[in-house]
Amino acid sequence: MINRRIVLASRPAAEARLDNFRLEEVPLPALEDGHVLVRHHWLSLDPYMRMRMNDTKSYAVPQAIGAAMVGGTAGEVVESRHERFQPGDTVVGSGGWQEYSVVDARQSGAPRKVDASVIPLSAYLGAVGMPGVTAWVGLTQIIQPKAGETVVVSAASGAVGSAVGQLARARGCRAVGIAGGADKCAYVVDTLGFDACIDYKAQRDFASLAAALDDAAPKGVDGDFENVGGMILDVVMSRMNAFGRIALCGMISGYDGAPIPLARPALLLTQRLKLQGFIVSEHMASWPEALKELGGLVASGQLKYRESIAVGIENAPEAFLGLLKGRNFGKQLVKLM
Amino acid sequence: MINRRIVLASRPAAEARLDNFRLEEVPLPALEDGHVLVRHHWLSLDPYMRMRMNDTKSYAVPQAIGAAMVGGTAGEVVESRHERFQPGDTVVGSGGWQEYSVVDARQSGAPRKVDASVIPLSAYLGAVGMPGVTAWVGLTQIIQPKAGETVVVSAASGAVGSAVGQLARARGCRAVGIAGGADKCAYVVDTLGFDACIDYKAQRDFASLAAALDDAAPKGVDGDFENVGGMILDVVMSRMNAFGRIALCGMISGYDGAPIPLARPALLLTQRLKLQGFIVSEHMASWPEALKELGGLVASGQLKYRESIAVGIENAPEAFLGLLKGRNFGKQLVKLM
Repeated sequence: MINRRIVLASRPAAEARLDNFRLEEVPLPALEDGHVLVRHHWLSLDPYMRMRMNDTKSYAVPQAIGAAMVGGTAGEVVESRHERFQPGDTVVGSGGWQEYSVVDARQSGAPRKVDASVIPLSAYLGAVGMPGVTAWVGLTQIIQPKAGETVVVSAASGAVGSAVGQLARARGCRAVGIAGGADKCAYVVDTLGFDACIDYKAQRDFASLAAALDDAAPKGVDGDFENVGGMILDVVMSRMNAFGRIALCGMISGYDGAPIPLARPALLLTQRLKLQGFIVSEHMASWPEALKELGGLVASGQLKYRESIAVGIENAPEAFLGLLKGRNFGKQLVKLM
Repeated sequence: MINRRIVLASRPAAEARLDNFRLEEVPLPALEDGHVLVRHHWLSLDPYMRMRMNDTKSYAVPQAIGAAMVGGTAGEVVESRHERFQPGDTVVGSGGWQEYSVVDARQSGAPRKVDASVIPLSAYLGAVGMPGVTAWVGLTQIIQPKAGETVVVSAASGAVGSAVGQLARARGCRAVGIAGGADKCAYVVDTLGFDACIDYKAQRDFASLAAALDDAAPKGVDGDFENVGGMILDVVMSRMNAFGRIALCGMISGYDGAPIPLARPALLLTQRLKLQGFIVSEHMASWPEALKELGGLVASGQLKYRESIAVGIENAPEAFLGLLKGRNFGKQLVKLM
């Protein structure tokens, strides 16, 4: 049986490009005792993958050259030599950018079985998966919003941002999104129920973006869930109230090139802000509680999400580069069968 | 009776200058019921005062033009119309840049009586006062160091920094100071007992300062008590270990001019750092515990400190401008009698 996969061919010099990736066809090995063969239905594409492509000090070891790109997957067991799994089981794991994965079911990091009868399988890669838990951890554990406070989230129509705002609303907060484009902003307000959304592409500089935020957050900002960094973070920080909290989840604006400075760090002092960078995989203790709330809200239709779907593993690199440019609209997935 | 005081004459355009201050002689009013007249022996000069001279949004209301500069004082009651105070009582309060103050003893913020028999009166403005408590709060409440960790503090020979390092050593940490000049560094290591001290004036750029920090903190930095900001903060951040904590107490390098950006905020994310700006006056619940430890350590000679003493209220502005340039060596005081 042949497995098609995308490997990292080379590290980006600055902006990631298609030729940093390579499609390979490799035969699948015979299954050993304790191992399971999974056919992936869905591959999750997420901004953190861009950082792994660099060979710099970060929270994860760099993606190895020539190895399949790492990534979350949802699929179905097709063959099992471990008693815990049966063919037909739907599972979620870290199978990488490939059509199949062979995993040792006895090791940590093995796939976990999920029920795809109520919640669609793809949602376990989004609202009821890593992005949803990321939103939950940053909001409830770092921002810790009180009812009546204002929470701002950048990349608001994305997999993480959309959950942040809806979870904040459920806690009695004013939720303000920042997104790129009028269509995304309309979706954030009309469908997701945010109180306001700012189209950063319609604002050309700090002053106009800040004025838009003043309109959207008239009482200032108490919590910032930061996915973007750069000028967006500078503007939000300039509008933060005393004792505001910043959950630093991503800085996608700087992933492709030179570091983007923070313009006015003195605000952290004068406003007595608390800022914390975090990685959801280091908050495993929160996952059960987070998944319980997220799963319940998705099952009941209260937590809404949207998916951008590319088809075929060969199209994963282009979809990923589009994600880095904000061309996706909602959770970016690759459909593999 | 005549009171001599320094008032804010004008706000600095950029760097603070002598002509931003004015010496005045004013008669003292007759004492009203409930009021106390205090003769100041010592005035404390502290970097936060520079921020108050600006008319910008900060944690405190700006210093009013034409009013006596705010500041901590230690002195002696000379006349009292409140039962709690008697002439001869030694007291610490916020008397401002002047030789006398008249205070309403029934209001919050009234002076508190201190025992100057074991601990010198001036120490209540330094190691056993606001600067010492600042060190204690930032270190124990924000950095929360564990034995074996490395804590870095900038402005290490100053009133706050010198206490930070000694308190960190007492908790089993490696204490690394950053100070300006070989004499200050020698004092920080030889007298205060820090493990190492870096003379930032001997390092001309980021790379050489970073190399010096690599030597001084071979296991990286777990806690940063930040008093300076600018390039020093950039360098320390670049050497922080995962889950490091930054207690942001001051950014004296930027008080006089344009905001100094933070060069690489992405480190906050990749190293999952926690950064918190704080003001000691907003941590009143910590003061009793802090003062108990600090007072005990000073009384027993275990917590050492040094004072720079200017003489006469008329010399306060020049001493203050020197403090902003790092010309002081230890706690900057003005002796008023």
